[in-house]
Amino acid sequence: MPRITTVSSSPVRDLLALTARPEVISFAGGLPAPELFDLDGLRAAFDRALSRRSLQYAPTEGDADLRAHVAARMTARGLPTGAGDLLVTTGSQQALTLVVTALLEPGAVVAVEEPTYLAALQAFQLAGARVVPVASDEHGLVPAALAEVVERERPELLYLVPTFANPTGRTLTAARRAEVAALAERHDLWVVEDDPYSELRYRGEELPALASLSPKVLHLGSFSKIGAPGLRLGWLRAPAELLRTLVIVKQAADLHTSTVDQAAAAAYLDSHDLSAHVRALCAAYRERRDAMVAALPSTFPEGSRWSDPDGGMFVWLTLPGGVDTAELLPKALARDVAFVPGAPFFATAPDRATLRLSFTTNSVAEIGEGMGRLAAALRG
Amino acid sequence: MPRITTVSSSPVRDLLALTARPEVISFAGGLPAPELFDLDGLRAAFDRALSRRSLQYAPTEGDADLRAHVAARMTARGLPTGAGDLLVTTGSQQALTLVVTALLEPGAVVAVEEPTYLAALQAFQLAGARVVPVASDEHGLVPAALAEVVERERPELLYLVPTFANPTGRTLTAARRAEVAALAERHDLWVVEDDPYSELRYRGEELPALASLSPKVLHLGSFSKIGAPGLRLGWLRAPAELLRTLVIVKQAADLHTSTVDQAAAAAYLDSHDLSAHVRALCAAYRERRDAMVAALPSTFPEGSRWSDPDGGMFVWLTLPGGVDTAELLPKALARDVAFVPGAPFFATAPDRATLRLSFTTNSVAEIGEGMGRLAAALRG
Repeated sequence: MPRITTVSSSPVRDLLALTARPEVISFAGGLPAPELFDLDGLRAAFDRALSRRSLQYAPTEGDADLRAHVAARMTARGLPTGAGDLLVTTGSQQALTLVVTALLEPGAVVAVEEPTYLAALQAFQLAGARVVPVASDEHGLVPAALAEVVERERPELLYLVPTFANPTGRTLTAARRAEVAALAERHDLWVVEDDPYSELRYRGEELPALASLSPKVLHLGSFSKIGAPGLRLGWLRAPAELLRTLVIVKQAADLHTSTVDQAAAAAYLDSHDLSAHVRALCAAYRERRDAMVAALPSTFPEGSRWSDPDGGMFVWLTLPGGVDTAELLPKALARDVAFVPGAPFFATAPDRATLRLSFTTNSVAEIGEGMGRLAAALRG
Repeated sequence: MPRITTVSSSPVRDLLALTARPEVISFAGGLPAPELFDLDGLRAAFDRALSRRSLQYAPTEGDADLRAHVAARMTARGLPTGAGDLLVTTGSQQALTLVVTALLEPGAVVAVEEPTYLAALQAFQLAGARVVPVASDEHGLVPAALAEVVERERPELLYLVPTFANPTGRTLTAARRAEVAALAERHDLWVVEDDPYSELRYRGEELPALASLSPKVLHLGSFSKIGAPGLRLGWLRAPAELLRTLVIVKQAADLHTSTVDQAAAAAYLDSHDLSAHVRALCAAYRERRDAMVAALPSTFPEGSRWSDPDGGMFVWLTLPGGVDTAELLPKALARDVAFVPGAPFFATAPDRATLRLSFTTNSVAEIGEGMGRLAAALRG
């Protein structure tokens, strides 16, 4: 098994295991806040959804009601979508792996914005793909850098998180979206728009989904950040021909996603106002974001730079003075606070002076306390 | 995407779509009987399981309580297993695909009993493997034929359903199990023991799991046939080193299986007697099996042969006179009864005179009526 043995377990997951001590304030995970889950609403939805039908095998494509709801929400947000354009997946992680299986042969070239979501990097590695980074700045992926990579490397696929990216929190501007879409069309390049965070916007105007600008863009959505991740519900919007292939790949992967969880999500969308729930999430997360960003100047040394995200879950930092943040982590853990060093988010040459902080999991008070501990760790 | 375009959608699934008319009595699907699901028990289990914790992300390996319950049940049935030997999967279909990803490179050789489960054949095709059939008879896979294939083809993997096989209903004898295990050890051959049906035994004595005879055997289990398939819960028992690799492959596949469904299954196993439920299932399925087997002589023409399964869901038939059962199917559908032609279950040269009947989904009365329709279709 030559491919597998070169891939290690997710560093973030291994780290999370180490930071599970209850006294640790963790800014490491990318977890939604559990106290904000609509537990009562979801309990009622499961109760309503449970039936002999929802306990049975079901079509691979997914629950018809759930697909109709998701399509209607996408359409309302400016991405015209029919239920038949969607495949329900076991989380959007599965959607990504299905796309990889359907489109990439070993040795294929994948372009990624850098830094990027590390479980995506893992999926590309597992498929034996060669990952080529594309530079990004505070406005997201740089189109000129993409054009150069496309010219030189002829990638099969571009992967990016255009809105409130993981790990950077950055958002691709509207002008750059148009440029990326045009490049994709011109070079017949498949683009994966991984979009778990875009509904978590705390300021500014919504931007058009990349998928609304070109049929070469596959759009991945998720219930994990707006509903709850435990249900493992994601969806994939793709052109009809590719969708047919992806359904076959999904059949082999797990036949279909949990019928019960799909029916529960559909029942929830029938009887609850998810958009109102998302507004409540945004109100809470906005305060947490503000608390963390406000604490940054007094926490990190002079010369540190950070992203100022309009939404999502993450702040991305670069520290001055050639520091390696992996060496800071044990000091932070000794003070019962955790973050993620930035190196694993790079496909090739990592910038070791970077780190990621998540502001969604902790309350404003905990963020204040945790940032204080982090400041102490950085001084000591 | 050269690999994918050679793989078509599951013929059985396509067929099931055609037989969804309510007036059709279908012996085609491999579906458990929905009226026998413990709906009230599972509803109570979901209600108990739903919590902020079960809505959150969770470790890839699976719910600790569920793994402990499954390990205890395996151990009680003669396969000594610890929770740490198990990976929870999104149905046992996922377990198979994870094994394929971890162990097979494109071009690898996979040996399968013939005929065999067609979604397994699909998974091997998707991986670009070359499938080599091993002859089986009424006692399951023939060890001498396996020895010959191992010698000639040097397969990486052997796949089989040793107990109440899909599609044949056949069971590998104890003596042959020992021979297969010895061959696996001698030739360092990985064996996948796909075991969704063994608890559905209607007569005779339990046989030792292949995995109890050799550490080269990976054991796949499932909640689908003893609980409910809609939860998509399976599990995989593997040696520690391979299990570590499989966990990494599963991370890329879907991060983890639904936390809610796992917690609900664990809660069900805490508070309900699954073995008593399985005994009730067996009592009902035994009557259905008996009704179908009793109707076979008056339904199928002189010279037909069929399996006489001790458990599981299927009867396998071979008709006389060079008939192609695919040509019989439209006649059967015209009389509102369905079966599955046998050809897709063969890896290479199909025996087109074969067909599969499932006896679990319909009541004894429906089986009588359906077999009458089938007899009429065969005469007409």
